[in-house]
Amino acid sequence: MKIYGDVQSGNCYKIKLLVSLLDIEHEWIHVDILNSETHTSKFLAKNPNAKIPVLELNDGRCLSESNAILNYLAAGTDLLSDDPYEYSKIQQWQFFEQYSHEPFIAVARFIAKYLGLPDERRAEYESKQEGGHKALQVMERQLQQTAYLAGDQLSTADISLYGYTHVAAEGGFDLSEYPAILQWIDCIQSHPRYISMN
Amino acid sequence: MKIYGDVQSGNCYKIKLLVSLLDIEHEWIHVDILNSETHTSKFLAKNPNAKIPVLELNDGRCLSESNAILNYLAAGTDLLSDDPYEYSKIQQWQFFEQYSHEPFIAVARFIAKYLGLPDERRAEYESKQEGGHKALQVMERQLQQTAYLAGDQLSTADISLYGYTHVAAEGGFDLSEYPAILQWIDCIQSHPRYISMN
Repeated sequence: MKIYGDVQSGNCYKIKLLVSLLDIEHEWIHVDILNSETHTSKFLAKNPNAKIPVLELNDGRCLSESNAILNYLAAGTDLLSDDPYEYSKIQQWQFFEQYSHEPFIAVARFIAKYLGLPDERRAEYESKQEGGHKALQVMERQLQQTAYLAGDQLSTADISLYGYTHVAAEGGFDLSEYPAILQWIDCIQSHPRYISMN
Repeated sequence: MKIYGDVQSGNCYKIKLLVSLLDIEHEWIHVDILNSETHTSKFLAKNPNAKIPVLELNDGRCLSESNAILNYLAAGTDLLSDDPYEYSKIQQWQFFEQYSHEPFIAVARFIAKYLGLPDERRAEYESKQEGGHKALQVMERQLQQTAYLAGDQLSTADISLYGYTHVAAEGGFDLSEYPAILQWIDCIQSHPRYISMN
């Protein structure tokens, strides 16, 4: 299988981390979004929404959206329960990630790290702080009760949230306020097949 | 089971539509978000992210995020394939809905319909139009190829996207540019157990 992505994107790194944890053989194809490589007709045939990551199976079928890809790759493994409630609980955290976490933490990080926090984006950057901390508080509350987000076992919900949470400081979020999140990050990083973003 | 929501919210209406299509017995509990009813300690115990809809099972377990709830309720029915690729394809459309569709179409509708398009929100309303049309184009492209979003059969992906798409005109989006979407809307509305938002 082929995976199209850029590991500097947290959404792509999630996939890179999962294929390492599960030791899944694959070909990684780097896509340069700043060079509009997601807007070629060849790429749009794989994902009309012009976003990475994209998974391409050997038979040519494609899948986009990082969390949908994670759940496809993890099907049948310990990282994804097939109990309907537990699987839906994992998805709950992944939808939370895309709607209530990523648009604040990942966007603030992008403005600060990649754009160098220019004056014309400073108000937007500041406006992301409250929503980002709210998301971190929701995670902290859960991780004070259970070792992982969806319960006592590592799941794709953790891979999803780990992607941008562990680099939240690059978006101005001080994680020292969140001891349970810090412990959870340590747990994930201690996995024998863990790989870092860089 | 109990469902906490407000049917005027597309995210809650999705659940109302699904339980009607599948004839699922439930108690609907209206929650008034404008009256801060999602911020009481009782509600926060059900969903610390302070959002509706929330599903509460008879044993007290709760689930939030509209699309996770849909997939839980549809497990084992014709609306949700248990083939890993097909299930992930359905999720792909649902993550697309939450990240690339809802933040444009639902927010524009909220500003126009509920706030009456006040001058101080007009620039934000205008800024939502391009992203909303981009999402509609992605849907149109798929629906020109298959009757439903994830293939030839109605799935929870369609319920998810139908929620805000069928009222997109209330956010200023003219659907007459999208014939395949209009046909898809007709298909869903012709279901014998369809119920409207109002």
